[in-house]
Amino acid sequence: MVKVGILGVGTVGASVANILKNNADIIEARAGKKIVVKSGVVKNLSKDRGVDITLTDDYLDIINDPEIDIVIELMGGVEEPYKIVKEALKNGKPVVTANKALLAYHRYELQELAGDIPFMYEASTAGGIPIIGALRNGLSANHIDSIKGIMNGTCNYMLTKMINEGALYDDILKESQELGYAEADPTFDVGGFDASHKLLILASIAYGLDAKPEDILIEGIENITQTDVTFAKEFGYEIKLLGIAKKVGDGVELRVHSTMIPSSSMISKVDGVMNAVTVIGDCVGETMYYGAGAGGDATASAVISDIVNIVRGNHDPMLGYKKSLESGLRLLSKDEISSQYYIRLEVDDESGVLAKIASTLGKFDISIESMLQKPSKKEDGVKLLFTTHICKEVEMQNAIKSLKLLDVVHEGIAMMRIEK
Amino acid sequence: MVKVGILGVGTVGASVANILKNNADIIEARAGKKIVVKSGVVKNLSKDRGVDITLTDDYLDIINDPEIDIVIELMGGVEEPYKIVKEALKNGKPVVTANKALLAYHRYELQELAGDIPFMYEASTAGGIPIIGALRNGLSANHIDSIKGIMNGTCNYMLTKMINEGALYDDILKESQELGYAEADPTFDVGGFDASHKLLILASIAYGLDAKPEDILIEGIENITQTDVTFAKEFGYEIKLLGIAKKVGDGVELRVHSTMIPSSSMISKVDGVMNAVTVIGDCVGETMYYGAGAGGDATASAVISDIVNIVRGNHDPMLGYKKSLESGLRLLSKDEISSQYYIRLEVDDESGVLAKIASTLGKFDISIESMLQKPSKKEDGVKLLFTTHICKEVEMQNAIKSLKLLDVVHEGIAMMRIEK
Repeated sequence: MVKVGILGVGTVGASVANILKNNADIIEARAGKKIVVKSGVVKNLSKDRGVDITLTDDYLDIINDPEIDIVIELMGGVEEPYKIVKEALKNGKPVVTANKALLAYHRYELQELAGDIPFMYEASTAGGIPIIGALRNGLSANHIDSIKGIMNGTCNYMLTKMINEGALYDDILKESQELGYAEADPTFDVGGFDASHKLLILASIAYGLDAKPEDILIEGIENITQTDVTFAKEFGYEIKLLGIAKKVGDGVELRVHSTMIPSSSMISKVDGVMNAVTVIGDCVGETMYYGAGAGGDATASAVISDIVNIVRGNHDPMLGYKKSLESGLRLLSKDEISSQYYIRLEVDDESGVLAKIASTLGKFDISIESMLQKPSKKEDGVKLLFTTHICKEVEMQNAIKSLKLLDVVHEGIAMMRIEK
Repeated sequence: MVKVGILGVGTVGASVANILKNNADIIEARAGKKIVVKSGVVKNLSKDRGVDITLTDDYLDIINDPEIDIVIELMGGVEEPYKIVKEALKNGKPVVTANKALLAYHRYELQELAGDIPFMYEASTAGGIPIIGALRNGLSANHIDSIKGIMNGTCNYMLTKMINEGALYDDILKESQELGYAEADPTFDVGGFDASHKLLILASIAYGLDAKPEDILIEGIENITQTDVTFAKEFGYEIKLLGIAKKVGDGVELRVHSTMIPSSSMISKVDGVMNAVTVIGDCVGETMYYGAGAGGDATASAVISDIVNIVRGNHDPMLGYKKSLESGLRLLSKDEISSQYYIRLEVDDESGVLAKIASTLGKFDISIESMLQKPSKKEDGVKLLFTTHICKEVEMQNAIKSLKLLDVVHEGIAMMRIEK
């Protein structure tokens, strides 16, 4: 029999306890041993958790219990769980975590500390979708060309409503908050930070690349308007918040932002709260993994799969590499990114404006791919929407600064990147 | 260093050899050891294989070579590779195979023989998509409710062309043969047999269920016409050849057939030669896995992932179970299947015909869900297309026999199952 202890018995922790009990037959048959929860740690002992396991409010009751074989960390936060799982590893206990933030900041230290002790985290990225396993095991023969993921259900739900139902950003944010999909302070989701944690985890497995959230480009969905949605439709794009990791030469671009992607691509068809990750490998071509990115039971499914893997005695290297790659790939800076871009601006409705804009872009070696002009609500104004051919991010940022200085250009230039 | 020997150096075998060489850096970093091909077995030594490995025409050169650590079986066929891999296992050598037919017939004997020796087969099902790993590891916490897979690229290519371009079955079959997507005798693909082998493998991992191709319902795409395609479109369906495994009470339905599925479902959006498998688990909900189901490099990607898993020392039970499930699930007979159905028939264009048909269906407790009447090419004839509510397969089969006996019904009643 294998005994586990759960740090943090919230929604996911309760699901883990209940599934280990309700599906005990099949889990034991697959793992080879019975797996039971011995105890759980909570901050507030008086609250009903809907589980029939022993509860304590002292994490040492689990970390120091010689009967506990595996520690499940579901507390959330960064530094507090970091301190506790380090103690668990020092006591020789394998760790399973669903904590993306912990990994976004400390995965390489944890790998070092864990050594041969299993440290598993399938649930940290894209909830119930077994993407960590797919990337670490299933695609191990491949140099990874790119990863593109819809890894935040809140953003995807909001974008789907904006695109399919014409909802306005502020209205749908309010609805998402009422439905419990978005927090009172939604910045972590809509600002792209949640997705960035998951992207960093996947980038480590794909590229052996160490980076922290503050090292990479992170933008959210806050500035998308119905004008952008309409343009996207007309030009055959969907808009998604994507986490993107992409090999370019000897470097890797890591970035999270709202993105126009062709409506014909599989990942563009992923709607509502669902998540999906597309991985392109040099042998396998494109593969995609789709499912629920959140929710107690779906996340618990991933947590328990890690426990089963540990019980079976599997030995996957924590971050996918047994040795480091000699020809390491370097993280490209934000300026070095290249992309196609979509630009929206409001300008004076008079002759010669377009020439001024095109000439400004030209100074930065940016050429226009397609253009659409629409009437504006403002008198004497007109909306210009266009897409560019591939150019460097630094040139685009400088071009936008220059465009803002033109007297024919009104305030509020919007930009979105395009991935084909 | 780990040395492997390849039985059968065709397209996939050559890809395995070339990728192990070209991607040696990343594969060694991930596996922890260098992996090299020591030798390959071919029938015809004079043919150029485009690989720089030692070739022999005697399989014993690999099976009995004490330097060979892992045997890769890529010969195809059933009884010959069965004999050879048994010898390899007796010599204590781990086996990796891409051979779906071998597994469709002998997976339980091989599991018994292999015991603790790794026997891996990720490439046998859906090519480069790591669906075996997802089901065996990633979803191990779940009772599996259903698996629905597009697991034959030839059929999916043909159906996509018929649906998107209005191509006729015979024309597109000919084109597929010219493109090399379909064999001169296409029965194995278009008749559903290839997909059935893959379905049986997945059903073992999901349900611990032993069955052979001859035990299950297998139908192909041969009888689909443009009339069916048009009807499907009008009623919001796509037509796909699906392998379906579904838990119903204490039984499991296993079946392969062309199927109408809602256009809103993710798997209905999988077009061309691509494969995809949807798995619904009781905790995780719906997950989907998408990618190339065939091709040398994609298949080799899966073969090499198995090698890396073996080199890492992983211990997954071959068919997903360390112990057998005490409450085993039984295979439901073909008659016990239940489904919604689509029926196409040609009838006399006269009053009272519809009443006769509805009354015949009623005798078998079959009720009509929707109906469409279309003019027929034949004089005095009319096409009736309808869908039914859920009923038993045996009732539907008997109803079709009775319908054929009605004098108002012309020859050639077509039936397709619907999955929602």
